[in-house]
Amino acid sequence: MRRLLAGLALALAVTPAVAQSNNPIALRDLGSFHIGGRWIEITGQPIKEIVFTPGGVPAKLDPNGKYQVEQMYVQYFLQQKAKGKLPLLMWHGGGLSGVTYETKPDGKPGWLNYFIRHGWDVYISDAMERGRSGWTNTFKGEPVFLPVGDPWERFRIGPPGSYSDDHAKRVTYPGSQFPPESYDQFLKQGIPRWTTTDDQIVKAYVELIDKVCPCVVLVHSQSGSFGFKALEARPDKVKALVAVEPTIGGDKSKIAAVKGSPVLIVVGDNAKDHPRWSKIRGGVVEYANALKAGGGGVDLVDLPDVGIKGNSHMMMMDKNSDQIADLIQKWLVSKGLSE
Amino acid sequence: MRRLLAGLALALAVTPAVAQSNNPIALRDLGSFHIGGRWIEITGQPIKEIVFTPGGVPAKLDPNGKYQVEQMYVQYFLQQKAKGKLPLLMWHGGGLSGVTYETKPDGKPGWLNYFIRHGWDVYISDAMERGRSGWTNTFKGEPVFLPVGDPWERFRIGPPGSYSDDHAKRVTYPGSQFPPESYDQFLKQGIPRWTTTDDQIVKAYVELIDKVCPCVVLVHSQSGSFGFKALEARPDKVKALVAVEPTIGGDKSKIAAVKGSPVLIVVGDNAKDHPRWSKIRGGVVEYANALKAGGGGVDLVDLPDVGIKGNSHMMMMDKNSDQIADLIQKWLVSKGLSE
Repeated sequence: MRRLLAGLALALAVTPAVAQSNNPIALRDLGSFHIGGRWIEITGQPIKEIVFTPGGVPAKLDPNGKYQVEQMYVQYFLQQKAKGKLPLLMWHGGGLSGVTYETKPDGKPGWLNYFIRHGWDVYISDAMERGRSGWTNTFKGEPVFLPVGDPWERFRIGPPGSYSDDHAKRVTYPGSQFPPESYDQFLKQGIPRWTTTDDQIVKAYVELIDKVCPCVVLVHSQSGSFGFKALEARPDKVKALVAVEPTIGGDKSKIAAVKGSPVLIVVGDNAKDHPRWSKIRGGVVEYANALKAGGGGVDLVDLPDVGIKGNSHMMMMDKNSDQIADLIQKWLVSKGLSE
Repeated sequence: MRRLLAGLALALAVTPAVAQSNNPIALRDLGSFHIGGRWIEITGQPIKEIVFTPGGVPAKLDPNGKYQVEQMYVQYFLQQKAKGKLPLLMWHGGGLSGVTYETKPDGKPGWLNYFIRHGWDVYISDAMERGRSGWTNTFKGEPVFLPVGDPWERFRIGPPGSYSDDHAKRVTYPGSQFPPESYDQFLKQGIPRWTTTDDQIVKAYVELIDKVCPCVVLVHSQSGSFGFKALEARPDKVKALVAVEPTIGGDKSKIAAVKGSPVLIVVGDNAKDHPRWSKIRGGVVEYANALKAGGGGVDLVDLPDVGIKGNSHMMMMDKNSDQIADLIQKWLVSKGLSE
C-alpha cells in the first residue's frame, strides 16, 4: 500500500492538515526588488507621437535606443523572529506567476502564508518574462496563451476529455482535492509565457541565489527544471530543494556536484497511469534513482502512497494544501532547516 | 512664496520627513485575488504541439476555444490594529505595476510600507493588462516599450535633453530628489502597456471598488484618469481621492456627483514651466478650480510652494518620499480618515 522511494518519517504525512494559525503575522520588513537583466539596442525605427491618456497631452517617443530586458521581480517577507534557518525561495510553474503561492482561488490561505506563519523568511518571485518582471517583444517565437479548458486536463483536475465550458458538465477525478467551483477563478492567474526563454530565466534565478542565499528553494512544474539547474550552478548555496511535480529532473552528469543538498520530490495523484504525466513522472523517478545511486539524499513521495489522495498538479491550491505543506515542513525540520 | 490653491494646515508639510518606524509590521492577514475580466472566443486556429520544457514531454495544445482576459491582480495587507478608518487602494501609473509603491529603486522603504506602518489596510493592484494581471494579444494597437532614456526626461528627473546612456553625462534638475544612481534599477520596474485599454482598466477598478470599498483611493500619473473615472462611477464608495501628478483631471460635467468626496492633488517640482508638464498641470488646475467652484473640497499642492523642492514625477521613489507621504497622511487625518 505505502511505497516510499526513500526512507523517512513520512508516516506523519497522514496527520490531518493543521489549520493555519490566526496569530498576527509579525514581520520585521517586507519589500521587493528586481534583479538581473541586460540592455539591448533597437535602431532604425521612426519617431512616434503617443497619447498615453485619451484626451491627454501627446508625447513624442523615439523608439530607437537601448532597452532594459530580462530582469526578474522578487517580493520578500522577513520575520520578526525567524524559525527557518535559511530563507525560503518559492518559484512558480509555467504560464503563471508568484501568485501561485498566494491566496488560493477558493479564497483560503496558500503556501506563502503557511510558510510565513511557520517562521520562514520568504522570497517569492515572478520568473523572468512573467508578471511583475515585465516582458519584451524580442524573445524568440510566439507567446503561448492557454484556452480555458487546457489546465483542467493538463493539470489533472479531471481526466482527458473531462472538461466542458459548461460548469455542470465538468468532471473531476474521483476524490479530486481541487475545488472545481474555483477553477474559473484560477484561470485569472494565467500569464502568457514563451517556450524559448529558459536560459534567461535561469540566469536571473542564479543572480537571485547569489544575492540572498544560502537558502532552500521550492519549485513547481516548469520551475523544476530551473531549480535543478540552479542547484547545479550553485550547489554550495542551494542547501535543499523541494520539487513539487517538477516536469523534468536534473542533469545526471552533474550528480556528484549536487549530492550534498537534500532533495524532496512530491508527486500528486493520478500521475502514474496518466498518458502524459506517467512519462513526466518516469523521467523524474529515473533522475531521482540516479541521484540516490550517486550518493544524493533524495526523497520522492507519491502522495497517494502515503495516504494523501486526490491531489492535482496544482496541489498548493487544492483543498488539502496545508496537509502537503505540513509534509514539506516536516521534511525541512527533519533536515535541520527549521525549528 | 507659499501659494496654496486651498486653505489647509499644510504649513506642517515642511517638517522634516519622519523615518519609517522599525516596529514590527503586525498583520492579521495578507493575500491576493484577481477580479473582473471576461471570456472571449478564438476559432479557426490549427492544433499545436508544444514542448513547454526543453527536453520535456510534448503536449498538444488546441488554441481554439475560450480565453480568460482583462482580469486584474490585487494584493492586500490587513492590519492587526488598523488606524486608517477605511482601506487605502494604491493604483500605479502607466508602463509600471504596483511595484511603484514597494521598495524604492534605492532599496529604501516606499509608500506601501509607509502606509502599512501608519496602520492602513492597503490594497495594491496591477492595472488590467500589467504585471500579475496578465495580458492578451487581443488588445487594439501595439504595446508600448520605453527606451531607457525616455522616463529620465518625461518623468522630470532631468530637463529635456539631459539624458545620456553614459551615467557620468546624465544631468538632473538642480536639487533633484530622485537618486540618479538608482535610475537604471528603476528601469527594471517597467512593464509594457497599451494605449487603447482604458475602458477595460476602469471596469476592473470599479469592480474592485464594489468588492472592498468604501475606501480611500491613491492614484499616480495615468491612474489619475482612472481614479477620477472611478470616483465618478462610485462617488458613494470613494470617500477620498489622493491624486499624485495625475495626467488629467475629471469630467467637469460630473462635478455635482463627486463633490462630497475630498480630493488632494499633489504636483512635484519643475512642472509649471515644463514644455509638456505645464500643459498637463494646467488641465488639472482647470479641473480643480471647476471642482472647487462647484462646491467640491479640493486641495491642490504644488510641493515647491510648501517648501518641498526637487521632486520628480516619481516622487514616491524620491529621496524625500516619506516627507510627501507625511503630507498625504496629515491630509487624510485632517479629513477624519485616520487616527
